[in-house]
Amino acid sequence: MPAGEYRQSSRESGSGEEEAWLWGQIKAEARRDAEAEPALASYLYSTILSHSSLERSLSFHLGNKLCSSTLLSTLLYDLFLNSFSTDVNLRSATVADLRAARYRDPACISFSHCLLNYKGFLACQAHRVAHKLWTQTRKPLALALQSRISDVFAVDIHPAAKIGKGILFDHATGVVVGETAVIGNNVSILHHVTLGGTGKVSDDRHPKIGDGVLIGAGATILGNIKIGEGAKIGAGSVVLIDVPPRTTAVGNPARLVGGKEQPTKHEEIPGESMDHTSFISEWSDYII
Amino acid sequence: MPAGEYRQSSRESGSGEEEAWLWGQIKAEARRDAEAEPALASYLYSTILSHSSLERSLSFHLGNKLCSSTLLSTLLYDLFLNSFSTDVNLRSATVADLRAARYRDPACISFSHCLLNYKGFLACQAHRVAHKLWTQTRKPLALALQSRISDVFAVDIHPAAKIGKGILFDHATGVVVGETAVIGNNVSILHHVTLGGTGKVSDDRHPKIGDGVLIGAGATILGNIKIGEGAKIGAGSVVLIDVPPRTTAVGNPARLVGGKEQPTKHEEIPGESMDHTSFISEWSDYII
Amino acid sequence: MPAGEYRQSSRESGSGEEEAWLWGQIKAEARRDAEAEPALASYLYSTILSHSSLERSLSFHLGNKLCSSTLLSTLLYDLFLNSFSTDVNLRSATVADLRAARYRDPACISFSHCLLNYKGFLACQAHRVAHKLWTQTRKPLALALQSRISDVFAVDIHPAAKIGKGILFDHATGVVVGETAVIGNNVSILHHVTLGGTGKVSDDRHPKIGDGVLIGAGATILGNIKIGEGAKIGAGSVVLIDVPPRTTAVGNPARLVGGKEQPTKHEEIPGESMDHTSFISEWSDYII
Amino acid sequence: MPAGEYRQSSRESGSGEEEAWLWGQIKAEARRDAEAEPALASYLYSTILSHSSLERSLSFHLGNKLCSSTLLSTLLYDLFLNSFSTDVNLRSATVADLRAARYRDPACISFSHCLLNYKGFLACQAHRVAHKLWTQTRKPLALALQSRISDVFAVDIHPAAKIGKGILFDHATGVVVGETAVIGNNVSILHHVTLGGTGKVSDDRHPKIGDGVLIGAGATILGNIKIGEGAKIGAGSVVLIDVPPRTTAVGNPARLVGGKEQPTKHEEIPGESMDHTSFISEWSDYII
Amino acid sequence: MPAGEYRQSSRESGSGEEEAWLWGQIKAEARRDAEAEPALASYLYSTILSHSSLERSLSFHLGNKLCSSTLLSTLLYDLFLNSFSTDVNLRSATVADLRAARYRDPACISFSHCLLNYKGFLACQAHRVAHKLWTQTRKPLALALQSRISDVFAVDIHPAAKIGKGILFDHATGVVVGETAVIGNNVSILHHVTLGGTGKVSDDRHPKIGDGVLIGAGATILGNIKIGEGAKIGAGSVVLIDVPPRTTAVGNPARLVGGKEQPTKHEEIPGESMDHTSFISEWSDYII
Amino acid sequence: MPAGEYRQSSRESGSGEEEAWLWGQIKAEARRDAEAEPALASYLYSTILSHSSLERSLSFHLGNKLCSSTLLSTLLYDLFLNSFSTDVNLRSATVADLRAARYRDPACISFSHCLLNYKGFLACQAHRVAHKLWTQTRKPLALALQSRISDVFAVDIHPAAKIGKGILFDHATGVVVGETAVIGNNVSILHHVTLGGTGKVSDDRHPKIGDGVLIGAGATILGNIKIGEGAKIGAGSVVLIDVPPRTTAVGNPARLVGGKEQPTKHEEIPGESMDHTSFISEWSDYII
Repeated sequence: MPAGEYRQSSRESGSGEEEAWLWGQIKAEARRDAEAEPALASYLYSTILSHSSLERSLSFHLGNKLCSSTLLSTLLYDLFLNSFSTDVNLRSATVADLRAARYRDPACISFSHCLLNYKGFLACQAHRVAHKLWTQTRKPLALALQSRISDVFAVDIHPAAKIGKGILFDHATGVVVGETAVIGNNVSILHHVTLGGTGKVSDDRHPKIGDGVLIGAGATILGNIKIGEGAKIGAGSVVLIDVPPRTTAVGNPARLVGGKEQPTKHEEIPGESMDHTSFISEWSDYII
Repeated sequence: MPAGEYRQSSRESGSGEEEAWLWGQIKAEARRDAEAEPALASYLYSTILSHSSLERSLSFHLGNKLCSSTLLSTLLYDLFLNSFSTDVNLRSATVADLRAARYRDPACISFSHCLLNYKGFLACQAHRVAHKLWTQTRKPLALALQSRISDVFAVDIHPAAKIGKGILFDHATGVVVGETAVIGNNVSILHHVTLGGTGKVSDDRHPKIGDGVLIGAGATILGNIKIGEGAKIGAGSVVLIDVPPRTTAVGNPARLVGGKEQPTKHEEIPGESMDHTSFISEWSDYII
Repeated sequence: MPAGEYRQSSRESGSGEEEAWLWGQIKAEARRDAEAEPALASYLYSTILSHSSLERSLSFHLGNKLCSSTLLSTLLYDLFLNSFSTDVNLRSATVADLRAARYRDPACISFSHCLLNYKGFLACQAHRVAHKLWTQTRKPLALALQSRISDVFAVDIHPAAKIGKGILFDHATGVVVGETAVIGNNVSILHHVTLGGTGKVSDDRHPKIGDGVLIGAGATILGNIKIGEGAKIGAGSVVLIDVPPRTTAVGNPARLVGGKEQPTKHEEIPGESMDHTSFISEWSDYII
Repeated sequence: MPAGEYRQSSRESGSGEEEAWLWGQIKAEARRDAEAEPALASYLYSTILSHSSLERSLSFHLGNKLCSSTLLSTLLYDLFLNSFSTDVNLRSATVADLRAARYRDPACISFSHCLLNYKGFLACQAHRVAHKLWTQTRKPLALALQSRISDVFAVDIHPAAKIGKGILFDHATGVVVGETAVIGNNVSILHHVTLGGTGKVSDDRHPKIGDGVLIGAGATILGNIKIGEGAKIGAGSVVLIDVPPRTTAVGNPARLVGGKEQPTKHEEIPGESMDHTSFISEWSDYII
Repeated sequence: MPAGEYRQSSRESGSGEEEAWLWGQIKAEARRDAEAEPALASYLYSTILSHSSLERSLSFHLGNKLCSSTLLSTLLYDLFLNSFSTDVNLRSATVADLRAARYRDPACISFSHCLLNYKGFLACQAHRVAHKLWTQTRKPLALALQSRISDVFAVDIHPAAKIGKGILFDHATGVVVGETAVIGNNVSILHHVTLGGTGKVSDDRHPKIGDGVLIGAGATILGNIKIGEGAKIGAGSVVLIDVPPRTTAVGNPARLVGGKEQPTKHEEIPGESMDHTSFISEWSDYII
Repeated sequence: MPAGEYRQSSRESGSGEEEAWLWGQIKAEARRDAEAEPALASYLYSTILSHSSLERSLSFHLGNKLCSSTLLSTLLYDLFLNSFSTDVNLRSATVADLRAARYRDPACISFSHCLLNYKGFLACQAHRVAHKLWTQTRKPLALALQSRISDVFAVDIHPAAKIGKGILFDHATGVVVGETAVIGNNVSILHHVTLGGTGKVSDDRHPKIGDGVLIGAGATILGNIKIGEGAKIGAGSVVLIDVPPRTTAVGNPARLVGGKEQPTKHEEIPGESMDHTSFISEWSDYII
């Protein structure tokens, strides 16, 4: 994204203004694509260009993606629209998630690309609605949504799980997030990541992920443990113990780079920089 | 589940009685949810409350979930109903699987929650029918079912694989079970688990999983090896050798906790207790 | 597959002849299955027997699998048919991929079995069309296809990724292939395999996989590294460094069997032999 | 239909035998057509050749024709199959209706042609089930079926209406049959025919049609009047008074050919001979 | 409908109150039917019981009935809901039309019966929205709606046609109403009725139907003529000239009962009494 | 339509040029409507603007309109596209039919209006393909198409019926055209018109309609009779005898205006002028 665009948008202060700016961008992108590609124009009009707001577009898209022969698209559309249009927090989370994908993922070429095509983004927005229903004690409906999200996107997030803003679920297939898990803000989570329980207990039993954490593909984090803010979990790691802030854990079972006593601290926020291999040489040398 | 409920049901001895009791529970749960949540009532009536038996409800639900534009729901419904209504073993396996989810998974709040929403449960029931077709040498139909199950639930179980009763496929996304695999009774398998072949041979080439085994998320078990009864396989483990009964294997490649010669034996049945991290401290200490 | 069949087909020299021979086989298989299994005949006629060519059958099947309420089957059918019928390279890749599944996977009982049921095969063919669109700078359409493939098959291949011929994506659920990844010919890739980026850079950042490589289930290969031709990557490995030709890398993090200095070379082409556990004893002994 | 065929079938005495013979004919026709026309084979297999009985084929076809997003095909299939398989009268009526179309309509080239394509036949069979539901005081379901039949086939028959066997609704679009109407056996009714009420009364207010009556296209018959057996109603007639047996009524308002006092009697059974214009010259001469 | 009910409702003065009363009735009816007929409960919940208002229920039902693969239900639902919720006139017309069916048609057993099952009612409500779009110069959308209504309900009303309140389109199949037609209040129109143009002119060229008119089945009224208030048009009549108030026209071509000079006047409002045959004897005697 | 447009198009001589001109008009209309009405843009892009030719647009639209769960849209699309793209006569008939609607029907506001929304036009084009199949002795497929056309459009044309070019089926609901009927060029037929057989014979038994004939709404024409060129049949008429060229027949039973011996001849071509009531005064005066 060109710097000019970024500055323009960062000048916007209020969430409503930012949402409006973003929606304007999305419509402009979709219009450009519809003109360049007539075969896609119908899709772009039905999903984006025929709608008057981001929340309508998103509700329409989710309703059509998640519907089934026994849960009709109109019912889901209504449910999503009602949630998004009455809850400004949901909408600001959507905006933050769109930004997260656009600025962190080099493969993301536009906001509309994320809105339409990122199953991680869509699963997360649908989860936010399911979570809202859960907190309203509309549990059976929340669980039915979870099930549809898991069927359609292969992303299985328990509706009770709490998820912050500015989240990137990249690729997303196979992500599992348990009932008592908590995910902070500006976290980036790759596909096949599990935030799982331990089975021993039936109350608080899932990981707590701090702000700015980056979790690599296929990492499995189990139990009511803390992944400190800005920590980095290597791909394929199996993490069963707390990870201090701004440290890196790798391996199966995971250990801290630099060792338990003197873990190497890094300065950047990996959930935002998405740097998941700067520790390669160090780690590899250490182990082999 | 309150102890009272459990005792009531465990007093039922015959399988038909137990099925009837369970179906009664499921209808009661669905009725309660339909009353509390009108938005879900249509779904609950079409999937559960309009049916006269568990097998009809399940056949309807699977037919509608697994159908496609080229494999119609009515055809699948017929196929499932015919199998379930003529094979008491299939039905008792369904009952045992519902119990397994309800009693082992702390996130499972009701039998109907599992029946409607657990893709692992649904994939497993559909597999049982595919397996029956396979043994009747209706292989192309069995393979078409396997393919639909893999598309819809991201659970890929070869129809020749033999699976016992009381199985919990928790979360289930990404599970792969090969052609000559055998899974015993009361086994719990988390998501992303592979019971794979070795490619060297084309006959008996997949794992044999004993009764009461617990296999953690992302574990990969390859080759015609035995996982002894009551064994526990740690999340993310890669297991290429036999694991003795009631021992725990962890790591990539997996090794036995306590060592090959004197593996630490545990007493509980992990496939039922779902305790997948009691070995954490031991293991972590051992390695790092 | 009996040797006689193989010889007959390998005598065919030109790609058109081979395609014709293969299509003849597929129709014969489908006809045999339709006769034996009336419940499947409708499916076999609509997907195979009513079509006049492999490309039509495949386009029909992909169109119906990948369509959604906002991307109609007729539009996708048109798109696929147009691509396959005008590009002989696409068609010869399809033929090579069908052969790869048939000859390498012991669970594959016929060409039609693969054509109809293998999500890895179908995802790969759809990717080939998406890649062609990408190179024609029809990027938004290519990305929409990628998204549908990821939703439907849980296989997420960036349309810019370059993939050779004779590829077997076995089971395929959870495969992720990044934008600048390159896969050679005759490669076999199991499910849950990631060819991922590193996040640090936005240009060439994904693995390059040589000809004849075999990548085991759940392996994660990250960064712009080279997996030499004929190399073997163990299941569950996390590979962050180059792997020399005809060597085996295993573990998390992966190390070469035999060590970095003197890796053990093997002679066969593992991508074709699918031998993914011949290194078990060696490796296990080495580590534990 | 060749005489030989007819004799062969008429030798069958019991209804079960006749049904079996007819189903054999239908399967043979469908098999022949599927071989000759691959583009239609999928349709013929799904609707006829994959089924084990006429009642299953018909239930499947009606379920798929009449379903909607809020009334699923599986529910309707179940409903139809349950009705047809438990009520031999329904089945014998179906057989008689198939014969009626095949022997009376020169455009009907086979039994399967009628079974698959005649909306009048299909609407009538669905009505028979709706009528059964009505008599079981399952009125709301019966009325929902009526509505679907009217939407899909443009044939609006009140579920309370009593209809005999051997009925041909030819073309059928626009037929309306009111709540207290009664139709005898071997009646032939063309499209746009109304058996309507008068609005003055809310009890018995619709026509009673005797056996063997032929009602021409667009005829409107209103009120609790009797159309005597073997009578003929000219196309476009508006009939508000009783018509004696074996006489012909034509015109708007209808009058008897030959006059009220001495109506010309005919001998054949017009509902079976389908002769709807032998009275042309006479009538035309009379009027103009 | 029992007198008590009627009085209760007629006491309601404001339109909002009446709508609320009616919606209460409809929900009560649907609840009773859902309890009595589990097979229909899913349908009743999705169409009525899950909604919070009549306008939502109706918009949902119309959206699902009129949608197609190229006009999605969510889009139509949005369109209908937006129209009904912002236009109190539309809603009061819906209420009046429901009453018209309930009180005039002896076959109408409840308000919900009409709401769910009467294609004439549904076509008319959808037309009212199309008409609103037309007057907002959203002509292409209005015409697309007209086309869907004609496909689905076989009722073809030009969106420019003006239609009053309290209209009963009974059975409705085949009704055609032209561009410049005007229909007053409390009119009852049977099926196959045409209010057609003459082709000679392209401006005001269709009939004007006064208040309280009753038009019998199959009547064809052509040209810019006036059917005076309270007039009655006999079934099957072809009317090409003005019909004075409270007179009856019958026949093809239609003539006034009693003759052009001294037409017999009647006192009741036939559009409300639905008496379409009181003129039988007189007419029949006159003609034959 | 402004005269300028007409002249421009009439200057085009060859059929290919005219088709190209018309397709250009249609795209321009659709583009204008898509811009003015975002809610319809998706529909317009999918049906018209994404296609490269009129035959593709029409095949897509018909495939999506006529498909069912057992006859897939892709199959029908293929069938239509294959017919239209290989048969220039079919295409020129389509062009002539579009012109007929546009120039004769005052309610037709654009070519795209007719292409998208006129069920008579769409039914006729689908019939032309069914007729072609019939002549290729692909009778079962032709009859299946007829059935779908009758279900979806309520227009029932036997595939053997021969229909000329420049045909307007206005409103079209309820039209029935029998097996041996022949319709000339530039004929206009209103809704509910029947060209029916007599039932007495099984060979040539349906009407032959000359060029330029106009048949009013609800007219029923029965038997192997000739309606001479330029004749006019009044709405609601029942015609059982030949009608000489350029004369008008009205009434039930129909008689010639002016009498059998000296029928009044008119000069214009009513099938093109659509004047269906110029004979009103004459006729009415005559009769009453």
